[in-house]
Amino acid sequence: MRIVDLIEKKKNGECHTRQEIKFLIESLMDGSAPDYQISAWLMAVYFKGLVEEETVWLTEEMIKSGEVIDFGVLADSIVDKHSTGGVGDKVTITLIPLLAAAGIPVAKLSGKGLGHTGGTIDKLESIPGFNTRLSIEDLIKQVNQINVAIASQTQNLTPADGKLYALRDVTATVNSMPLIASSVVSKKIASGAKNIILDVKYGSGAFMKTPENAIELSKLMVNIGKQLNKSITAVVTSMEEPLGRAVGNSLEIIESIEFLKGHITSGDIAELTYSFASIALLQVGMFETEDEAKKYLKDIVSSGKALEKFRELVVAQGGDVEVIDNYDKFDLPMYKVEYESKKDGYVNNIDAYKIAYACKLLGAGRDKKTDPIDYSVGVYINKKSGEGVHKGDILYTIYSNDHEKTKHAQKYCDEAFSINSNKPSHNNMIYKIISAEED
Amino acid sequence: MRIVDLIEKKKNGECHTRQEIKFLIESLMDGSAPDYQISAWLMAVYFKGLVEEETVWLTEEMIKSGEVIDFGVLADSIVDKHSTGGVGDKVTITLIPLLAAAGIPVAKLSGKGLGHTGGTIDKLESIPGFNTRLSIEDLIKQVNQINVAIASQTQNLTPADGKLYALRDVTATVNSMPLIASSVVSKKIASGAKNIILDVKYGSGAFMKTPENAIELSKLMVNIGKQLNKSITAVVTSMEEPLGRAVGNSLEIIESIEFLKGHITSGDIAELTYSFASIALLQVGMFETEDEAKKYLKDIVSSGKALEKFRELVVAQGGDVEVIDNYDKFDLPMYKVEYESKKDGYVNNIDAYKIAYACKLLGAGRDKKTDPIDYSVGVYINKKSGEGVHKGDILYTIYSNDHEKTKHAQKYCDEAFSINSNKPSHNNMIYKIISAEED
Repeated sequence: MRIVDLIEKKKNGECHTRQEIKFLIESLMDGSAPDYQISAWLMAVYFKGLVEEETVWLTEEMIKSGEVIDFGVLADSIVDKHSTGGVGDKVTITLIPLLAAAGIPVAKLSGKGLGHTGGTIDKLESIPGFNTRLSIEDLIKQVNQINVAIASQTQNLTPADGKLYALRDVTATVNSMPLIASSVVSKKIASGAKNIILDVKYGSGAFMKTPENAIELSKLMVNIGKQLNKSITAVVTSMEEPLGRAVGNSLEIIESIEFLKGHITSGDIAELTYSFASIALLQVGMFETEDEAKKYLKDIVSSGKALEKFRELVVAQGGDVEVIDNYDKFDLPMYKVEYESKKDGYVNNIDAYKIAYACKLLGAGRDKKTDPIDYSVGVYINKKSGEGVHKGDILYTIYSNDHEKTKHAQKYCDEAFSINSNKPSHNNMIYKIISAEED
Repeated sequence: MRIVDLIEKKKNGECHTRQEIKFLIESLMDGSAPDYQISAWLMAVYFKGLVEEETVWLTEEMIKSGEVIDFGVLADSIVDKHSTGGVGDKVTITLIPLLAAAGIPVAKLSGKGLGHTGGTIDKLESIPGFNTRLSIEDLIKQVNQINVAIASQTQNLTPADGKLYALRDVTATVNSMPLIASSVVSKKIASGAKNIILDVKYGSGAFMKTPENAIELSKLMVNIGKQLNKSITAVVTSMEEPLGRAVGNSLEIIESIEFLKGHITSGDIAELTYSFASIALLQVGMFETEDEAKKYLKDIVSSGKALEKFRELVVAQGGDVEVIDNYDKFDLPMYKVEYESKKDGYVNNIDAYKIAYACKLLGAGRDKKTDPIDYSVGVYINKKSGEGVHKGDILYTIYSNDHEKTKHAQKYCDEAFSINSNKPSHNNMIYKIISAEED
């Protein structure tokens, strides 16, 4: 078998055999297939696609390329959640203590964020002392003790996906549906959970521009899961504006704590958190209907059990638990500047990309894995879409450590807000839920 | 400018600017663009193409990447000829002494052949002592002295094309029309001739499968020439079976000598040689009509002037001129085995690929540039398409140095011939001639 023949085959729109996919990934891993052949193959896949069967085989071979976490007796009940990523997305942080308090074991592995704002791991590391570098053994032990653990993905999971992704990133082949699907699903399966909830975003800032694309990707991932004996539920959600009000690492943790304290009962964060959590409860068979599940989950928040579980999680992972009751225990930024609306009307839209870019300018994100992050900076959105504003009302607040950067960030934030005289219609965050049963 | 953005642009079917093409080729040459990005770009070009303007720019940048031969005062009158390659194609060897004897200076640079049978340089090197390693200075000097010279392309011409071709070869991106056109035309222009004749083959064994494809490629190459101030004439020719009767290095030289001696006056070799030569005579304005040109050329052969010019060429390049009068002076193969037809009928087709493969088995070709070639082996076709055969007539002859290889080659030769009771209709070798004036 020669790689050049496999490229030719895919270029002509033919399907690979299982042996061919195996040969491709093995050749990638042992270095016998040079990067220039793999990247030509990736571009051919971009144009000609992979059928579902090929995508399943690719997923399997990427899983086999590295370690697979074995949670033992917990494996069947454990839940994992993944998001294709969004500005201000702190739903993992609100969700996992809630699920754990509801009796569902949660083990979450998360990559370090590359981009304009930090990832889940970065956000949690804004809690002084919080340690995410858990070994697999520590992760399993902690889930057994307190039902929840979160660790940065430093293990040798799906190294073939790592290699492919690095090539896709520099060859304009990231946005291929079968390549995205196999990448996401292989990582989740290697992480050891049987039950997987995928938040698949669509919108101008997401990989999937339309709900139709997001549904196609979701169905593909759910079907791969089915073939590989995992229960995957994909939730297609809108990503038109930042999630919640806080964008920036410690600001997002504070907003998550506010939710867990029961102070945020409506809006996008509450809607997504309760929806994902109730899906998990239905998935493991704890309830029959979504309404029952949501009522139970709201009780867990209002009774303080969810916050208590978060407290246990912070303590277990060495974080300063005092931040929960005293937000001043976080690293504080030097400036907090409030910006007023220049006109009356309703917020119609907030451009997520521009808010994210402002946060990047302030120092909240990174380009390279080794870049430092300023946990304290960010943007707080005082007025979300649908809310009425009067001239002079505070529209947003910038948290910053540099006066020049503040001015620069302000420009992008001002541009991000569109305010009109008409009140926009309310759109549900969740467009569609796709699970193997319905398919 | 970033290569990944240029890949993205081409992937989306957008056109590059001149600056972008320049940046791509410069980055390829200085090594700042890694091969894996170039190969992804090549695959995007395969799917999305290049418009004529982009192809002209690519051609220019490839020319600029290396040396360009300057023939000085000869430049405007000199003629170069290139073939996209065919089994048994010895038309360069018959053409160049004929043109030189007709008064047209010919300087021919040719690459070493990779494939089932040798290239023009390999064929000439089957003449003991024949030296093709001429410096540019020697090449120019010899053209000034005897009007003709042929050299292997060892100079640093279009190194960017060399790099791109090496990548295309291993990433299944050879058969892209703009990439083929820019590769062929850049090499010819860097070789210094103003007047260029391109033999563009079509057929099952050629890159271009249909005459329509070959015409499209021809028009593109002629137009690139026009933009770059060169006179290119493309001749679209059929490559359904081997050219002439001999396939194999010294066998093809012998057949060429037979033509130059005036012993071959009809058939494909004579048709193509006289056609190309008359195009050149018209191109440089020596005659007004094809008929006049062909009559003049036939006189040059029958008078012995063409053979005399070939003799001068062999002497000038150090070859043993005695081979011309005594073919036994070539290296002789150990076996010469004649194979008979098993039935009566007409030869309807001879599969060029199978004959070439038989020659490869016998040792006439090479896979790597460093592989040795056996000049003496090959296949002689005693009955060409359209000729009638009786059971027991000699169909073909194998020249070999190995009994086992002979048997193996026989299998492919037997399969190559298709003999039917009906006489096939005669097809002209030349399908269409495309020049800048007609376009």
